[in-house]
Amino acid sequence: MLRIIICAASLLGSVLALEPQGHVSIILLGATGDLAKKYLWQGLFQLYLDEVGRGHSFSFHGAALTPPEQGQRLMTQALDKLSCPPDILPERCLQLKGQFLQLSQYRQLQTAEDYVTLSKDIEARLQQLGLREYGRIFYFSVPAFAYASIAQHINSSCRPGPDAWLRVVLEKPFGHDRRSAQELSKELGTFFREEEMYRVDHYLGKQAVAQILPFRDQNWRALDRLWNRHHVDRVEIVMKETVDAEGRISFYEEYGVIRDVIQNHLTEILTYVAMELPKNLSNPEELLQCKLQTFRALRNLDKGSAVLGQYQAYGGQVQKELQKPASYVSLTPTFAGVLLQIDNLRWEGVPFILMSGKALDERVGYVRIVFKNRAYCTQSESHRDSGKSQCQPRQIIFYIGHGTLGSPAVLVSRNLFKPSLPSGSWQEIQEMPSLQLFGQQLADFHAYRPRQERDAYSVLISHIFHRRKDHFITTENLLASWDVWTPLLDSIAQEVPRIYPGGTSNKHLLDFEQEGSQVAFVQREVEQLVSSPGSGLMPKDFSVLKAKFRESPLISAWPEKLIAQLALDIEGAAERAVRRSGEFHLALSGGASPVALFQRLAMRHYSFPWGHTHLWLVDERCVPLTDPESNFQGLHVHLLQHIRLPYCNIHPMPVHLHRRLCVEEDQGAELYAKEISALVTNSSFDLVLLGVGTDGHTASLFPYSPNGLDGEKLVVLTESPAKPHQRMSLSLPLINRAKKVAVLVMGKRKKEITQLVSRVGHEPKKWPISGVLPASGHLVWYMDYDAFLG
Amino acid sequence: MLRIIICAASLLGSVLALEPQGHVSIILLGATGDLAKKYLWQGLFQLYLDEVGRGHSFSFHGAALTPPEQGQRLMTQALDKLSCPPDILPERCLQLKGQFLQLSQYRQLQTAEDYVTLSKDIEARLQQLGLREYGRIFYFSVPAFAYASIAQHINSSCRPGPDAWLRVVLEKPFGHDRRSAQELSKELGTFFREEEMYRVDHYLGKQAVAQILPFRDQNWRALDRLWNRHHVDRVEIVMKETVDAEGRISFYEEYGVIRDVIQNHLTEILTYVAMELPKNLSNPEELLQCKLQTFRALRNLDKGSAVLGQYQAYGGQVQKELQKPASYVSLTPTFAGVLLQIDNLRWEGVPFILMSGKALDERVGYVRIVFKNRAYCTQSESHRDSGKSQCQPRQIIFYIGHGTLGSPAVLVSRNLFKPSLPSGSWQEIQEMPSLQLFGQQLADFHAYRPRQERDAYSVLISHIFHRRKDHFITTENLLASWDVWTPLLDSIAQEVPRIYPGGTSNKHLLDFEQEGSQVAFVQREVEQLVSSPGSGLMPKDFSVLKAKFRESPLISAWPEKLIAQLALDIEGAAERAVRRSGEFHLALSGGASPVALFQRLAMRHYSFPWGHTHLWLVDERCVPLTDPESNFQGLHVHLLQHIRLPYCNIHPMPVHLHRRLCVEEDQGAELYAKEISALVTNSSFDLVLLGVGTDGHTASLFPYSPNGLDGEKLVVLTESPAKPHQRMSLSLPLINRAKKVAVLVMGKRKKEITQLVSRVGHEPKKWPISGVLPASGHLVWYMDYDAFLG
Repeated sequence: MLRIIICAASLLGSVLALEPQGHVSIILLGATGDLAKKYLWQGLFQLYLDEVGRGHSFSFHGAALTPPEQGQRLMTQALDKLSCPPDILPERCLQLKGQFLQLSQYRQLQTAEDYVTLSKDIEARLQQLGLREYGRIFYFSVPAFAYASIAQHINSSCRPGPDAWLRVVLEKPFGHDRRSAQELSKELGTFFREEEMYRVDHYLGKQAVAQILPFRDQNWRALDRLWNRHHVDRVEIVMKETVDAEGRISFYEEYGVIRDVIQNHLTEILTYVAMELPKNLSNPEELLQCKLQTFRALRNLDKGSAVLGQYQAYGGQVQKELQKPASYVSLTPTFAGVLLQIDNLRWEGVPFILMSGKALDERVGYVRIVFKNRAYCTQSESHRDSGKSQCQPRQIIFYIGHGTLGSPAVLVSRNLFKPSLPSGSWQEIQEMPSLQLFGQQLADFHAYRPRQERDAYSVLISHIFHRRKDHFITTENLLASWDVWTPLLDSIAQEVPRIYPGGTSNKHLLDFEQEGSQVAFVQREVEQLVSSPGSGLMPKDFSVLKAKFRESPLISAWPEKLIAQLALDIEGAAERAVRRSGEFHLALSGGASPVALFQRLAMRHYSFPWGHTHLWLVDERCVPLTDPESNFQGLHVHLLQHIRLPYCNIHPMPVHLHRRLCVEEDQGAELYAKEISALVTNSSFDLVLLGVGTDGHTASLFPYSPNGLDGEKLVVLTESPAKPHQRMSLSLPLINRAKKVAVLVMGKRKKEITQLVSRVGHEPKKWPISGVLPASGHLVWYMDYDAFLG
Repeated sequence: MLRIIICAASLLGSVLALEPQGHVSIILLGATGDLAKKYLWQGLFQLYLDEVGRGHSFSFHGAALTPPEQGQRLMTQALDKLSCPPDILPERCLQLKGQFLQLSQYRQLQTAEDYVTLSKDIEARLQQLGLREYGRIFYFSVPAFAYASIAQHINSSCRPGPDAWLRVVLEKPFGHDRRSAQELSKELGTFFREEEMYRVDHYLGKQAVAQILPFRDQNWRALDRLWNRHHVDRVEIVMKETVDAEGRISFYEEYGVIRDVIQNHLTEILTYVAMELPKNLSNPEELLQCKLQTFRALRNLDKGSAVLGQYQAYGGQVQKELQKPASYVSLTPTFAGVLLQIDNLRWEGVPFILMSGKALDERVGYVRIVFKNRAYCTQSESHRDSGKSQCQPRQIIFYIGHGTLGSPAVLVSRNLFKPSLPSGSWQEIQEMPSLQLFGQQLADFHAYRPRQERDAYSVLISHIFHRRKDHFITTENLLASWDVWTPLLDSIAQEVPRIYPGGTSNKHLLDFEQEGSQVAFVQREVEQLVSSPGSGLMPKDFSVLKAKFRESPLISAWPEKLIAQLALDIEGAAERAVRRSGEFHLALSGGASPVALFQRLAMRHYSFPWGHTHLWLVDERCVPLTDPESNFQGLHVHLLQHIRLPYCNIHPMPVHLHRRLCVEEDQGAELYAKEISALVTNSSFDLVLLGVGTDGHTASLFPYSPNGLDGEKLVVLTESPAKPHQRMSLSLPLINRAKKVAVLVMGKRKKEITQLVSRVGHEPKKWPISGVLPASGHLVWYMDYDAFLG
């Protein structure tokens, strides 16, 4: 079944005559597939054109599972379409194509023996012709499930000799989430060394994307002052498509827009824009370190970080292509807008918006860096020179392609600076000066486009050949990206995407806006012209419910309303306290529930008397205050850093004394108690905010705690059944001295304990929360419907 | 010389027939002046038209220094021009004008007797006609220097009886700075009670300005979410003129654009935009309190807060009108752009730009509130509906008048909300939908204009009559405004304004931009086509000078360069320390000199390893840490609040223990020493930044201090000759353990001590600075040219 690859000796001779450097075998796995037909063969041909004059000899092996004859026929069809760049004369092109076809053979690769034979054939041929082997490239253009077995065959039977190199080229998807990506990487790692693997993100081969880092480097003098949070208003990284997923549903339904486009292409671009510039741009190791730093600085994503859409026809296509019943509801997003934020000094507060979707109004890709308008123009608009006025938009755009411009481009507003681009490969755009683009005319930009457009795969295949690993995704890079995206993907798995009609009919339906660290559709409620999948399940927004719980007032609502009410009540208490005594002493619990409260207080309560407020902690974990697990740290991140609380009004618990944590003899609890006694009149806080654990604990007072449930002590060290075990906590007697106590309970997980607590009496030993009975009588329960009604 | 005022009995009769409410005498002082001719007589006529049917009787006394006959002639000329609003028929208008003329008489008011006679005449006439006196209004349309004597005369001879009221109306200028305004107010206060005085700012009578507060109130539902720093990008308050000051130079040269327009009109508008809404808009007391709060929250202005210009022809006009020699140079600004910032939770970080000038390209006044763009639009620009898209500009404009629109207006971008305006007095603008205005088309706004335009003075005269004090400037309000502006005016008194050609030729010459809390012209350097006044005096920017001082390296430069170099050196030290040991321990001095350094570190050094930096204080005044005098507070305001330093890396000196300051037995110094020993390896700071006092002190180590100049102690309590006397300071031995010490010396005041110190040996008792000799040998002096060269 095998055919021996015979390379015309005359042809090899003509190459060798130049400067013999050794032979390279390139094996394209999946040689008759879509990607190969569309891009890869052309890329290999381009490589041949570029390198043939430089002394290497080549052989190209198209491989697939298809039997030889049929496979050869399909491959020939693909090769027939190869074309030369415009600078090669047709006659010469025909000659080169002929040579390339002679060097290219189809080969069925199915069994272990097939791989053994392939290797033997290559070696035999090399010996026969007296050629030294330089290296082998295996290009995996096959479904991911086939990776492992192919990798195993290559590793065991198809490696070149010790003096030649092996490179394997992998195409996405690289897993489905962090875990699967890691498993795949681990598996591949058993067959290949890291430096042998070239993971392709073909966006890194697109000319405008590939220009981002060189542009930043070459224009650093001008950009140094501008490339930071003080000057950048926002960054938009966009890939819009007009087509939908029809015909590719079996793939798409499993991946969706985030895995398909955003986790890889758009995230890679984000790192190019945001990372600190490595000293040497082409050093893959330095580049990787800079990228990893950027990934590490990305703020965690969650449900609120994204808006999701699904084009209207998608459901029907799923039913048709996957033979699903009419009742089947797909939640796969075909559109997503995601807000990313980077917690470092350069980018803090600058929104990075990643947006992609199918069935939109235009096909276009771009990266847009919009600068803040800091200028005030004294001339009326009609007298301004748009090229010079600092009041016109100022932006830098890496235009990836398509759209109104129709080609890759780099655009810099003329009122910013005149950029430097490599003049050999980029030229100024002179045409269409009045074309409207991103709120400006093309003439208002210094605009450049490549002198010659090159396909991304051609570029990347050349990089593989030249071992430019900086243009590929390393395992670390890949896992860092999944670290960012997996939590979001998990959190939205059950989210119902907004249905959109597609094309220009979408109008403003998918426009979204930022609010704090979240995004939401601008049109909050959609008239249900189109029925949403699962829309029957969406809860209606009740108003706030008032009732009694354990004989104290109960306020219950959906989470947002509940938090709004609690924030309002806290502000009211603060105002009354400040009016009465000039001070407001507020003791706050840590944990997840109050985060939304902190954010709301920080973002919405402008007249809160923070200048007169003292913040105390209800409890603390015995970790350094800067540890992400520290309650203080949560308070700091979500509240303190947004408001202007006097430094001396902040009272973290002293869990970290003499460089050790919660050691009894360091007397941290006593120190805190003293501070409270000194500053808080009668040690009576104006307001204490508590939560409830599923075991009935409150503050860090756990069932059967030997400390803190009664006695004289104001502050105690306790033990939690959960890690970190050591805690510091206000005592129950101290809590009960407060003028007001609010207990916040949220989420379905709390349903059971809520029901239990509603029935039991005063049994603080068993259920510490049942011991919360402030002497003032002012206890209020705030429960969301999930916790209260389940 | 006096003429008795005879009011036609028949006419008075016709009024009294309605509902007799008493008689009002209005005395217009300066009745033949420009303001009177242009606005005030028309305003009084309008008052008569509005009120004549409501039962009061009136008499109008035009007064001036001019002898009666000539005065009467001039006044008659002015009265001839009176016109009725369009809704009064010509016939009826003629009749009303006739009545008004009969009630209006000229009167020369010069001597004390003239005032006595005026009062007697009024009383006699009232008695003769059997009318009760309701009140008297004295309108001061006279130069400010005449105020005092007129006020005295009115108070002593011209007050109405105890049952009638007195109102005096005052026109700006109300002083030249804080001191003169207070003196004038104090003087007027000896003659009139606060409630009797109506200080006019005629901008408060302009229809669009008067609409700001009612608009905010009536649209609160929509604005509540938007009217704050999270949503407002900036506020522009602008009054541009095309005319210049020709003919008014004697006034203008003394005042300039800030005193003429910005301190009063534009600042009043700013308070209307920024203040918290009073519960009752028309309660003058509540309004005043809200305004005063806003004034108090304004950040201090200084030289860097403003850019200044002077139109080119101004110098010549000054020479001509004030008979100055050709060598005379005026520094009076005719253009200013000022950045104001409000330090409260609502507005923190939002720039308020006040801009005004003569000889600009257009005549226009407006208040423009620009909202941040938080939206991301998925449709391409060509598919967006500008009225709905959140990606179009979102702004609210109170258009005061003139400009392309030609009338007062209130504009709200359609993508914000549909505002509610009183439909009786405001109507939607239907015409000119494609008019381009603030980057949008008029059709993109909900646009309203008054049904009937009313002159500001007519409006204000009506308010005076109806005792609407909320539309006038109280003494407190006036002084609060001068408190804001006087420091700026003082600091720019010797600044050379940028010369501009005038009109559209200004091009982008006056455009300015914000950088941190300062503003600067966008075009930093101007080609000297026009010679600046005093430009010969401007220092050229030398490069940084390196030399030796006391055998240690000296770096000297102009302040900005010096600070830039020091910041760079500190960052270098930080990077090295973090690389070496993972931590950087930096001890900083307080005082004025380091402020620019703090600001630069906060704004320009993005990659400074703050996360690994510990900040210590070199010395501290014994005041609470929140006191503006506290070194820590300065550090907090200018540096800490802008960077993200871990809470636990901040080490204020414990000057405030057990609620008392620097008490020996509280052992604050020992506590700080312990903290240093615990955290700083070998108690050796990586970098200590010191200053030098004119007496040779450094840190808070003063000449002949019994503490801290030698011995074992690391931290000591000391006594300063200046207040506050008590200090805490690092000791000289501790300072000398540092790996590096930098001494920053700036300003002419330091010249003398610098020269002295350059000569003396090691005499720390006499000059503590001479004892700074770090064992490491790394001592660097940073001196600006003023301190070094004098």
